Amino acid sequence: MSKLRITGTFLDEISYDIPHHNWGPEEWDADFAAMKAMGIQKVFLIRCCLHKFLAYPSKVIPAHGGLWHQPPVDWIDLFLTLAEKHGLEFYAGTGVRDDLYPELNEQARLDDAKVQVEIIDEIQSLYGHRKAFAGWYITNEICRNYPGAAEQFVMEASHAKKVTGGKPVMISPFFAGSKVREAASDPTLEFFGVEGHVKHWTQIFEAIKGLVDIVAFQDGHAELDELPGFLTATAELAKKYGVTCWTNVESFDRDMPWRFPPIKWEKMLWKLEQAESAGMTDALTFEFSHFMSPHSMYPTAGHLYDRYCEYAGLPARAKDFR
Amino acid sequence: MSKLRITGTFLDEISYDIPHHNWGPEEWDADFAAMKAMGIQKVFLIRCCLHKFLAYPSKVIPAHGGLWHQPPVDWIDLFLTLAEKHGLEFYAGTGVRDDLYPELNEQARLDDAKVQVEIIDEIQSLYGHRKAFAGWYITNEICRNYPGAAEQFVMEASHAKKVTGGKPVMISPFFAGSKVREAASDPTLEFFGVEGHVKHWTQIFEAIKGLVDIVAFQDGHAELDELPGFLTATAELAKKYGVTCWTNVESFDRDMPWRFPPIKWEKMLWKLEQAESAGMTDALTFEFSHFMSPHSMYPTAGHLYDRYCEYAGLPARAKDFR
Amino acid sequence: MSKLRITGTFLDEISYDIPHHNWGPEEWDADFAAMKAMGIQKVFLIRCCLHKFLAYPSKVIPAHGGLWHQPPVDWIDLFLTLAEKHGLEFYAGTGVRDDLYPELNEQARLDDAKVQVEIIDEIQSLYGHRKAFAGWYITNEICRNYPGAAEQFVMEASHAKKVTGGKPVMISPFFAGSKVREAASDPTLEFFGVEGHVKHWTQIFEAIKGLVDIVAFQDGHAELDELPGFLTATAELAKKYGVTCWTNVESFDRDMPWRFPPIKWEKMLWKLEQAESAGMTDALTFEFSHFMSPHSMYPTAGHLYDRYCEYAGLPARAKDFR
Repeated sequence: MSKLRITGTFLDEISYDIPHHNWGPEEWDADFAAMKAMGIQKVFLIRCCLHKFLAYPSKVIPAHGGLWHQPPVDWIDLFLTLAEKHGLEFYAGTGVRDDLYPELNEQARLDDAKVQVEIIDEIQSLYGHRKAFAGWYITNEICRNYPGAAEQFVMEASHAKKVTGGKPVMISPFFAGSKVREAASDPTLEFFGVEGHVKHWTQIFEAIKGLVDIVAFQDGHAELDELPGFLTATAELAKKYGVTCWTNVESFDRDMPWRFPPIKWEKMLWKLEQAESAGMTDALTFEFSHFMSPHSMYPTAGHLYDRYCEYAGLPARAKDFR
Repeated sequence: MSKLRITGTFLDEISYDIPHHNWGPEEWDADFAAMKAMGIQKVFLIRCCLHKFLAYPSKVIPAHGGLWHQPPVDWIDLFLTLAEKHGLEFYAGTGVRDDLYPELNEQARLDDAKVQVEIIDEIQSLYGHRKAFAGWYITNEICRNYPGAAEQFVMEASHAKKVTGGKPVMISPFFAGSKVREAASDPTLEFFGVEGHVKHWTQIFEAIKGLVDIVAFQDGHAELDELPGFLTATAELAKKYGVTCWTNVESFDRDMPWRFPPIKWEKMLWKLEQAESAGMTDALTFEFSHFMSPHSMYPTAGHLYDRYCEYAGLPARAKDFR
Repeated sequence: MSKLRITGTFLDEISYDIPHHNWGPEEWDADFAAMKAMGIQKVFLIRCCLHKFLAYPSKVIPAHGGLWHQPPVDWIDLFLTLAEKHGLEFYAGTGVRDDLYPELNEQARLDDAKVQVEIIDEIQSLYGHRKAFAGWYITNEICRNYPGAAEQFVMEASHAKKVTGGKPVMISPFFAGSKVREAASDPTLEFFGVEGHVKHWTQIFEAIKGLVDIVAFQDGHAELDELPGFLTATAELAKKYGVTCWTNVESFDRDMPWRFPPIKWEKMLWKLEQAESAGMTDALTFEFSHFMSPHSMYPTAGHLYDRYCEYAGLPARAKDFR
């Protein structure tokens, strides 16, 4: 049996709760080389805006209100250039215009989706011609079928596919496992177990089938003894609705007193084994650059790189990139 | 228009909530070299005592009570030696004898000021002859005119100027912006906006004019959309009272889940742009060694160093110092 | 007067609240070399199991329930091999099967001790013949005589000594100083001062005399002005009951906003001075690899290594190991 491999990573340039690396083009170039050597094939922009900061010189986002700074670097252009250089596929992320998106009411979700459609148009017009532009990541991180949530996915995914000639669309929700309330920004969230998960995601999958191509659930909101149940149920649901099912194997550790160091390798190994047992064929991670990279601000990330490469039978080692 | 430059930094050897670097003379020497290459001209000792630890072998401080450890290194002597070697100006900081100084009542403030006067005399007698000894930093970090606060500045600044033949005196208060309660140790603090800021600081500036030469407000207690209001009002007040007005552009990030990583460069850039627009001519930072230095315990500090040097058109790069 | 030296460290491979280094055999080998050069003679496995993770391929631990992962490396075997290579003594730690062990009631403590006896037998049967296997560390971290606590020590220590022909047994409790409630996992803990400490530990020492050979109290739960009282009282008690008394000089800083950076050197120096004044002849530390090592994820650990080696008159420097 071949081992489950990590073939994708998010790019957390517009960061939320992860300290910023302050990398420029040169440092990102070196990091793409290290990704490639670890087997990464796809990079997903985690979001194109958040908290006053933009990943590209958008006119659309500021036009809808709020104070935004014009970025000193066009990150989307840079990531496309580096993806082209290193032979990776780039997936563009939609925007986050409000920190509290899970609590949006139905109308707010639909209003936001209309703005996201404009953002998709703007990104397509600026970068649609780029060789490495491979698809879309819809950045709504949810665990349940909030009113409007499925419609939001439908509006954004269908538009993204339409304007880009059917390029694949990915989403990365999270499980309502027993760690969900502590981890997520919505204090009303409750652990509802695998049964509730299936109920909520049956509704969503019914709506998004044919529009969303890939689902990769974050694996960090469930304990290690709950995770196989969530993974297996998700793989079955995805199969039923014809959606490709990957795992988002988080490379940061949610069980430490500060947010967040790189994960303990044996914990990541265990989650990869569980995802493989559930039938998943690919893994992506949030995220390489802080938590698995030889260039990370956290030196243990380089050791995680080495442990993963040993596991995957790859010759790359962190010291080769320093 | 020339860009606003960072020309000063605090030295956080007697640290409060920043983990200690455990540097000796050799490491500090290397760090002064990196500062110099980034354009730093002035170094400000953040405080000469706190929580049982002393920056120099003081007899005055222990004589006023409490348990104090005799330092294994005379840090003030070392910093003066390194300032002389690297051509920097050293400003001595007064002491912090109680963690809760903002909550001191009026009499406690005036009593403390009398001890600070003795500390100033002791520092002057020990180090007043040193070539790099350029001035004083009065370490009271406040945002409002507490009873006794203006008198405290007056007593300490007038004495410091008197015994050192008029050497400049600097203070670095903070804005009562919307992040103030979370950031400061006084739970009674309230956001009182630019109007309240002007009211409080008009009173203080009226008292300290001619005694305090430089004011450099910390820029981290206000949101990015409040900051221009605070900066502009402060610059106007300072001009009215003949006080030189710099900005203290914090190089640590207050918006991350742990206290504190180096700041996201674009956020620092934005604050520099705002301070420049408000008419400030110099910036100092809290502080170089942890948050901007190639030698910092936080590797992203070196990347911030590089981004800043690129901005300022300086040839220095972090890798040159490792 | 010769200075008090650090001659032992814990090995925190199965970690609790310290982020994992993700080291493999090569990195551990390099770290043992750095330990040795700093004067470390003894290494103590902090625990052989915790939170689903095992330090060795145990059959006993999973047989008593719970989900456990089979470790990708036999850490006990590795540590013994490295201890033999570098000429160190290895002490095996018992297991932690429940996070909340201090709150166990008497019956639960005695039941746990029976399982620990089986674990001791298993470790002895697997590794008892190894040259570097020098003794035992009983991992119960307590500050008071909980019902069953003394019996637990007696059952485990007497069994460990019996099956290994009298190899020494070490424990490392903590002081009920004024920082105890914040630091420990038992919210019912109260600061009960030196008097209460003597009362509780007289009872325990009476029970364990002749069975536990070494006691090394953790020094981080008391303020620096309380510590001499605790240290002196403990040294006297230990002398009375014929137990060797070391100090566990913590190398991490409990006074910083995140858990935990390496300690400020002057604070460690002060604690070493206090322990020496109390008559202790040896120090061990929790723990070298994260908080004092040139290879630590925290770069300041290497500076602490240098400061300690300067203090101890040792030629080793962190840069020699990178």
